[in-house]
Amino acid sequence: MASIFSKIIAGEVPSHKIMETEHAFAFLDIHPLHEGHTLVVPKIETDYLFDVQEPVYSALWQCANEVAHALGKAIPCKRVGVVVIGLEVPHAHIHLVPIHEVSDIDFSRPKLSFTNEELRATAEKIKARL
Amino acid sequence: MASIFSKIIAGEVPSHKIMETEHAFAFLDIHPLHEGHTLVVPKIETDYLFDVQEPVYSALWQCANEVAHALGKAIPCKRVGVVVIGLEVPHAHIHLVPIHEVSDIDFSRPKLSFTNEELRATAEKIKARL
Repeated sequence: MASIFSKIIAGEVPSHKIMETEHAFAFLDIHPLHEGHTLVVPKIETDYLFDVQEPVYSALWQCANEVAHALGKAIPCKRVGVVVIGLEVPHAHIHLVPIHEVSDIDFSRPKLSFTNEELRATAEKIKARL
Repeated sequence: MASIFSKIIAGEVPSHKIMETEHAFAFLDIHPLHEGHTLVVPKIETDYLFDVQEPVYSALWQCANEVAHALGKAIPCKRVGVVVIGLEVPHAHIHLVPIHEVSDIDFSRPKLSFTNEELRATAEKIKARL
């Protein structure tokens, strides 16, 4: 069965897309740790990041780099942090999280909640800086 | 002034080296979250990961990939997780952490303590799987 991320990539589940390349797809996390929290995933469904083959593996980190630069310009933060855990959705995903301090990237914290309109506005801000 | 990581790369500060390539250097974190917790850093001192230029940026993620495969074979774990925060040492570093559950990658947890001999043995186990 297709993962939730494959359904997002296919447009069967709506998302706030930030960027799409030949091999990678980036969209807002709907349970963000911080405004602008973005997921970068391979279009080919692979469970574990380190099983993703070339050229997709490099394309993922290239996409993450471009999105991180746009995030850093669009969302006030000290850094854009990177996390890959991969114990939940069986489709590799890189979390890009604007952070001010270490605790901003603590996945045990309660997630934030934004309306669809707020997420749309955030996505527009980020895409304008790509 | 050279960062602690530049001193490690130069051999001025001892470390348990896992792997070295033209552009990247990987060594055991001495304050690990889990046995085998490894840092991958660029040899050229750059504060922020997303300021690291090519070909070094890609070389870092390539090195991380090779080390993660060896870690996954050498250290019992479900996954090798990835974290880049970068608010402390001003020299970009990728954390590779063997994990069983999400809380294994919580940076607010107390760090583990291993003797120098234990770290040496861990490094040998990982290097044997490279």
